[in-house]
Amino acid sequence: MKVVFNVLFFFIVITCQAQENGHQLWLRYKNAKPVTVICSKNSPTLSIAKQELQNGWQGEPNASITLTIKKDKALKDDGFRLSQNEVIAATEKGVLYGVYELLRRQRTGEAITGEAENPSYQIRILNHWDNPNGSVERGYAGHSIFWRSGPDSLTVTQNDKKIWTEYARANASIGINASVLNNVNASPKIITPEYLNRVKAIADVLRPYGIKTYLSINFSSPAILGKLKTSDPLDKAVIKWWQDKVKEIYSYVPDFGGFLVKASSEGQPGPQDFGRTHADGANMLADALKPYNGIVMWRAFVYSPNDKDRAKQAYNEFMPLDGKFKDNVIIQVKNGPVDFQPREPFSPLFGAMKQTSVMPELQVTMEYLGHDKYLVFLSTMWEEVLQSDTYQQGEGSTVARCTDGSIYSQKYTAMAGVSNVGLDTNWCGHLFNQANWYAFGRLAWNVNLKSEQIADEWLKLTFYGAQSSKSGEANYNAGWNDNFLKPVKQMMLDSREAAVNFMTPLGLHHIMSANGHYGPGPWWAPKGMRADWTPPYYHQAAENGIGFDRTKTGSDAVEQYHEPLASQFNDAATCPEKYLLWFHHVPWDYKLKSGRTLWDELCYKYDEGVNQVRSFQKVWDKAGVYVDSTRFLEVQRKLRIQCVNAGLWKDACLLYFQQFSKMPIPYELERPVNNLDVMMYNDRGDGRSH
Amino acid sequence: MKVVFNVLFFFIVITCQAQENGHQLWLRYKNAKPVTVICSKNSPTLSIAKQELQNGWQGEPNASITLTIKKDKALKDDGFRLSQNEVIAATEKGVLYGVYELLRRQRTGEAITGEAENPSYQIRILNHWDNPNGSVERGYAGHSIFWRSGPDSLTVTQNDKKIWTEYARANASIGINASVLNNVNASPKIITPEYLNRVKAIADVLRPYGIKTYLSINFSSPAILGKLKTSDPLDKAVIKWWQDKVKEIYSYVPDFGGFLVKASSEGQPGPQDFGRTHADGANMLADALKPYNGIVMWRAFVYSPNDKDRAKQAYNEFMPLDGKFKDNVIIQVKNGPVDFQPREPFSPLFGAMKQTSVMPELQVTMEYLGHDKYLVFLSTMWEEVLQSDTYQQGEGSTVARCTDGSIYSQKYTAMAGVSNVGLDTNWCGHLFNQANWYAFGRLAWNVNLKSEQIADEWLKLTFYGAQSSKSGEANYNAGWNDNFLKPVKQMMLDSREAAVNFMTPLGLHHIMSANGHYGPGPWWAPKGMRADWTPPYYHQAAENGIGFDRTKTGSDAVEQYHEPLASQFNDAATCPEKYLLWFHHVPWDYKLKSGRTLWDELCYKYDEGVNQVRSFQKVWDKAGVYVDSTRFLEVQRKLRIQCVNAGLWKDACLLYFQQFSKMPIPYELERPVNNLDVMMYNDRGDGRSH
Repeated sequence: MKVVFNVLFFFIVITCQAQENGHQLWLRYKNAKPVTVICSKNSPTLSIAKQELQNGWQGEPNASITLTIKKDKALKDDGFRLSQNEVIAATEKGVLYGVYELLRRQRTGEAITGEAENPSYQIRILNHWDNPNGSVERGYAGHSIFWRSGPDSLTVTQNDKKIWTEYARANASIGINASVLNNVNASPKIITPEYLNRVKAIADVLRPYGIKTYLSINFSSPAILGKLKTSDPLDKAVIKWWQDKVKEIYSYVPDFGGFLVKASSEGQPGPQDFGRTHADGANMLADALKPYNGIVMWRAFVYSPNDKDRAKQAYNEFMPLDGKFKDNVIIQVKNGPVDFQPREPFSPLFGAMKQTSVMPELQVTMEYLGHDKYLVFLSTMWEEVLQSDTYQQGEGSTVARCTDGSIYSQKYTAMAGVSNVGLDTNWCGHLFNQANWYAFGRLAWNVNLKSEQIADEWLKLTFYGAQSSKSGEANYNAGWNDNFLKPVKQMMLDSREAAVNFMTPLGLHHIMSANGHYGPGPWWAPKGMRADWTPPYYHQAAENGIGFDRTKTGSDAVEQYHEPLASQFNDAATCPEKYLLWFHHVPWDYKLKSGRTLWDELCYKYDEGVNQVRSFQKVWDKAGVYVDSTRFLEVQRKLRIQCVNAGLWKDACLLYFQQFSKMPIPYELERPVNNLDVMMYNDRGDGRSH
Repeated sequence: MKVVFNVLFFFIVITCQAQENGHQLWLRYKNAKPVTVICSKNSPTLSIAKQELQNGWQGEPNASITLTIKKDKALKDDGFRLSQNEVIAATEKGVLYGVYELLRRQRTGEAITGEAENPSYQIRILNHWDNPNGSVERGYAGHSIFWRSGPDSLTVTQNDKKIWTEYARANASIGINASVLNNVNASPKIITPEYLNRVKAIADVLRPYGIKTYLSINFSSPAILGKLKTSDPLDKAVIKWWQDKVKEIYSYVPDFGGFLVKASSEGQPGPQDFGRTHADGANMLADALKPYNGIVMWRAFVYSPNDKDRAKQAYNEFMPLDGKFKDNVIIQVKNGPVDFQPREPFSPLFGAMKQTSVMPELQVTMEYLGHDKYLVFLSTMWEEVLQSDTYQQGEGSTVARCTDGSIYSQKYTAMAGVSNVGLDTNWCGHLFNQANWYAFGRLAWNVNLKSEQIADEWLKLTFYGAQSSKSGEANYNAGWNDNFLKPVKQMMLDSREAAVNFMTPLGLHHIMSANGHYGPGPWWAPKGMRADWTPPYYHQAAENGIGFDRTKTGSDAVEQYHEPLASQFNDAATCPEKYLLWFHHVPWDYKLKSGRTLWDELCYKYDEGVNQVRSFQKVWDKAGVYVDSTRFLEVQRKLRIQCVNAGLWKDACLLYFQQFSKMPIPYELERPVNNLDVMMYNDRGDGRSH
């Protein structure tokens, strides 16, 4: 069969090779060998472990493998130890994780060593922003796998159980052990009996895979559901109401994990509505959960419309409360101080809250990074944040070490990822978005994994046994073929920087299209709109330059960072250029290290971003022939869309900012091809995709 | 004032420099010097000549210039002879043309020599495809300047007379001496008294500028208007009806030029409806016009839905009639045998009809070349056709020489251009489309002018006295500045080849979007549609190759060309590659002179076309600073649109044809960024622009 890229053929292939639709994720058990599994115990979790070995064994044919549960000083929590013929763990869950790791190594060709492997974080949790009506906030992969609308929306079907099982298995295979089933912008009704019935059904499916169930709650629930006069966290009736509610929840889900709370943020109710602090609110809930070993994940994503610098606000609100939270409260902090931008410096809360448990919240779903259209491997972004040195306890106080218990003793450690999963056949909309789900799980398990390693694993697994469109034969080593693996891996590793280049280079941020958060929208600022929801608030473009002045003479956000960072960020000469316009308002003719003016450098960065996407297209077109046509064509198609959108970003930002810089785009660069007024007309903040 | 490209500024500039809107065309009389004009005669035409000299004199201040009408053996028809202080001509019109030429040379810096200058064609005529309701078929510059809809549509206003005067003056300044006021798809009512009243008003305005008025007529007029039982050209009542009608027309317009007729073509009525020939029809009308020295321009654009090769049909229908037409009939032949495509070989009728007057019809309006969006200088295309050697009377029998009277004695010689003029402020939609109006006039006057010369003239005139956006001062020599003139002229000269490259390279043709004729539409072929209106009829793409086989073993269209062309075109090895797929169906892996396969060469050509447009953008951005911001921004804006559309053409054609070639696009080329199914969905033949 020859290489074919066309659309008609696309449909033919889909018909013939219906299995190549991405639904199998990284769990492609092709051509398994016989194996004998020995295990003295029996349980639902161990049954799963056994079955996985039998379905996916790629070691010596007819080998025997023993699953052993025993104490081992080196093994914590869900840890395990592997050998060629044994998986040792302290818990059943540990055995399951060991089995997945063993099978993974067989398919990637990695050596199986005898070292103990322990997770970095105790709680490795997905946050689903799924609404009870089945919609998913910032979801780009179809409707919710948990909820749906319609008259029978709460009936649990076999299809429901099937998808929940597949979901649980995928999570377990990468070490994820917790799920928040509903949106942080929470409907109160999620904790009513009819919904709790369905929560129980979900929890029952997730439990054997080692996954604990959590819920987001609405802080006004006592008033809304309980008809109380208030939801004041210090009100006795309110306290009682929550105690009863928690008790009720545990009657449905005995191992319920706890609550995720978005309070006093973006219109959500919270303790501040009653003159109370975040600590008052979180602790009240924590007290209610404590008897059941439940916990509260309290989000630090707060900012008021009139603050001078939104980037400072979470720190300003939470630092005074350090030490005031109960030990079963964890403050859940987004990786950056604003909002999941393509690049932000790390949130200054990391490491700064020394007497409070803190957990990072990463966004797996591509709210600001191209939805289901872009190929962006987020692992490099997360690695950049997690390995950022806060200096809070001397050099080496990375965000990872400040949150995983290495530096501060936390009763609970956790890392949250906002899920990108939906009912789309391939789960994540874009095939390569699966890599972000995978990477989140892997980093939550081992926060020091390199992105290169994660990409390598994912590619080998995801294209394991792929039907090559070149030879027409199953290519069990597709992922191992250097002609495929090397360039595609490099593309993944470069993909986030490419997106930063064509969207928000040099520290720009929050200049996307309003509401939709997809295309560019640096101009968007309707009258009466709160300023910190509009791009001009963030880019501050004017004739005298561009960028948000967060230096000591500006908003002084730099002061929230520990030295030497505060001084380093404060001085444009020492501030990393990737954060330059985050911390500085810089004249258009400011000279950068490249020798170029700021304006020229901006032009070069945007242009480079577009050309990087074009180069990805070539990489994929060349490498794609080693894999099946269906997934190849799907990714090829999306790269084209990304390329057009990258061009739109470049043109929109350069033409918009040029109004202020009044400088020409360097003539060696390709000229814009989109007209500014047309782009502005097409983007009226209604979130439509270009 | 600095260089500014932005949109906001655009509006400001428009307000401040309202004059820079392109309405002045190439007639920018800035900073005129005093002059004394001596002329012993007086007439409306001579008054115009005097006034033009006084408004536009750029010679020695206070010079005297004499306008002399006298016989001169070297001067034919509208010819003239110039010196520094005299314009000599045999007619008043000749004086007027001489005056415009003198003023032109002053503004371009060309030497004023004493040579006699005579026009190549007697009749230099614009065809307006304007409908009585004011719409313009294939018009991209607003509504008709002659007609409008509404209750007062036939009232002649001062505004009407003003625009008609400006139009007449622009035509006279480049030697155009005739206008057909209405669409060839003619409404019968154009020759009713109420419309003839308006025709008379227009003719009265055009007359002093030396422009004769013509009308397109509907061949069924006797039946429709005269209520006759037939419109059979041999029917006595019909003959009488036309005689009376012609007499009536001349009572309104005593110097009426004659009729333009589209008959038996694309649904228009014609003599064939009554079993008569084109000659029968044309001669009957010619006889009616003869007493008034009127003529008939009879179009050869005919083709029936079931012919095997549309390209052959005009020749097949008209050659048997050679010698059968009256001497006041001219057969009006489109430059190519199909229909104004970006590139066609010349129509084989040129030179072949040896006993019949033949005139070329060129399309000035951009039906197939990007409407008002593309920058395409058509002069090079026309030069290519007019200088094509037909070999009909030995080497050197160019299309020009076969039609201008050099080879064949014709009572009337003529060249027609389908006008691109409308009510848009800048007349032609795109500023650079003015250059095509200009080039048509210049070539009709001097068919041997080089495109380089025409572009040079037009640029110098059009940007004469432009307000430089660089210095902010009037720049009287803007067009003479090499930084502006050289690159922009080269861009104009390259622009048609660029369009061919990104639309229809290597002899492809008629693969545009249906109806709209703007974007690509190689796929368009609805069920039941007549085949020769669909692109697949023309490109014949299949697994075994692409192209229309017009060789001896195919449709044998080559046979219509005189040797050595017939043999040269018949053999793929000797056929010019620019016509390869016009004459040959060629395998995808056929090797071209470049050493590339046909498929690869197609890819390279499409890619080159896109990159040429990108290079035009750079040229314009660099050169534009020498001229006023308003016109600069307008052209910049359109080049962007052209660039996007060029990319669409490339992607559509390559992805569509790739379904048949099944070969990869060479990896050194940029990948397509548009998905085929989306492009096909967006183009459903409804003529919408992309």
